[in-house]
Amino acid sequence: MKFLRLGAFGAEEPAVVSDGVTYDLSGLTPDIDGAFFASGGVERVRSALAAGELSPVGDEGARIGAPIARPGKVVCIGLNYRDHAEETNAQIPAEPVVFMKDPSTVVGPFDTVLVPRNSVKTDWEVELGVVIGKTARYLSSPEEADEYIAGYVLSHDVSEREFQLERGGQWDKGKSCETFNPLGPWFVPSSEIADPQSLGLRLWVNGVQRQNGTAANMIFGIRHVVWYLSQFMVLHPGELINTGTPAGVALGLPDKPYLRDGDVVELEIDELGRARQEFAQA
Amino acid sequence: MKFLRLGAFGAEEPAVVSDGVTYDLSGLTPDIDGAFFASGGVERVRSALAAGELSPVGDEGARIGAPIARPGKVVCIGLNYRDHAEETNAQIPAEPVVFMKDPSTVVGPFDTVLVPRNSVKTDWEVELGVVIGKTARYLSSPEEADEYIAGYVLSHDVSEREFQLERGGQWDKGKSCETFNPLGPWFVPSSEIADPQSLGLRLWVNGVQRQNGTAANMIFGIRHVVWYLSQFMVLHPGELINTGTPAGVALGLPDKPYLRDGDVVELEIDELGRARQEFAQA
Repeated sequence: MKFLRLGAFGAEEPAVVSDGVTYDLSGLTPDIDGAFFASGGVERVRSALAAGELSPVGDEGARIGAPIARPGKVVCIGLNYRDHAEETNAQIPAEPVVFMKDPSTVVGPFDTVLVPRNSVKTDWEVELGVVIGKTARYLSSPEEADEYIAGYVLSHDVSEREFQLERGGQWDKGKSCETFNPLGPWFVPSSEIADPQSLGLRLWVNGVQRQNGTAANMIFGIRHVVWYLSQFMVLHPGELINTGTPAGVALGLPDKPYLRDGDVVELEIDELGRARQEFAQA
Repeated sequence: MKFLRLGAFGAEEPAVVSDGVTYDLSGLTPDIDGAFFASGGVERVRSALAAGELSPVGDEGARIGAPIARPGKVVCIGLNYRDHAEETNAQIPAEPVVFMKDPSTVVGPFDTVLVPRNSVKTDWEVELGVVIGKTARYLSSPEEADEYIAGYVLSHDVSEREFQLERGGQWDKGKSCETFNPLGPWFVPSSEIADPQSLGLRLWVNGVQRQNGTAANMIFGIRHVVWYLSQFMVLHPGELINTGTPAGVALGLPDKPYLRDGDVVELEIDELGRARQEFAQA
């Protein structure tokens, strides 16, 4: 059971893939959003599938959008893989590094991504995205986190390194450029993923593999991150946490092959699907 | 003409104050939000007032909510007053320092603000809030910014200094705690403010005046900030920019009198009204 959203940007309709068939969900929910997760939407879809109440989607060729509606916030964990911290000459963090992306940067997994004007250091980062299912506030332990996680998604935390690191102050400036968070193709409920902490993450640029990691190497694991964030902010249903990227970004490579107009990035995470984005000048 | 939103949290109804009378806007717009600003809502209200088409609100005693709907993002400028940068021992920034707050931190101007659990350094910051009226993307000059600004609002950028500065990494962790962005009482359209860059900002804690500044002392003025941000991210209608705070925060005072359960903060900005928040332990 994999959820997706099909249609033009801003007008996507919810759908679910089960046993290779894509079923329309628009009669069951207006969207795959916070209200859907908070009201037991995943279980309603499971029941509707079992009862044979859903019809296949009409348009098999529709655009694939981000698999969840625009989140209320996108929270990111920086330097959360030891090898990535080392390649960027950053210290291993003593506790999670937290920053945010503009939620309006979320686009579909096959949409064009824009290299910002005046950018010469646009970089890639494949990340395991965690989608919140239930309001989380001051969780008492990491173990409690499971019941607040709706599921997982393939996320691309596109980053402009000069804007992020050389333009004064905080990272958000290099993380929130237009189209900088391709998401999907699928949202997969946590009930369908036996061990999210063991998923492999891979990324290619113009066919050359650049990242090949596993969520097992996170410095702060998924449960720890959700528990930790809930001590500082309220996490709401439908919100997205990008949990960090493994080594292999352009910033960490000897020749620093930053992204340019025409470059193609492909990325995938075990069980969460594969995405492909062509880059173009803004 | 001042806009406000009246009613329970999450169920506020739009209203407008004109010549001392508060008129119901619920028949004219569902909310004071991005769609309202982008569709010329302010001018529609002006016309409806002139034509005598609006009725006074029924419940004069209703709670005053934030004067705009939850923004898509809240972008903040740090260290944007020379005296505040100096009091916090920070360098005068060469270009705007940018960070974000969780949009769900926005609450009403008289709502209770929560001191986070484990917080010992909760601090105040009175700020001039700028509300975007039209999608802004790569503006060509600061002068162009005026047409993208819907208006202004009194904003309280509540901050936890230990979380912000001593817990590793980026500031967002100390800026996004629950209830940390009281807003209002009013949204005032830019057409009603002759010179936003000359407005006075003041703040009191338990009756003792702590901040007394003027927007004239911003390092990067309002137009510069909007133009600058538009080079890094897309600004959408209804989004909020907190433009920084003048000197006088607890962090900058010799005895560092951080906020505690029971403390009362009052704040005001010329032409934008006055707010009052009691603090309570989360």
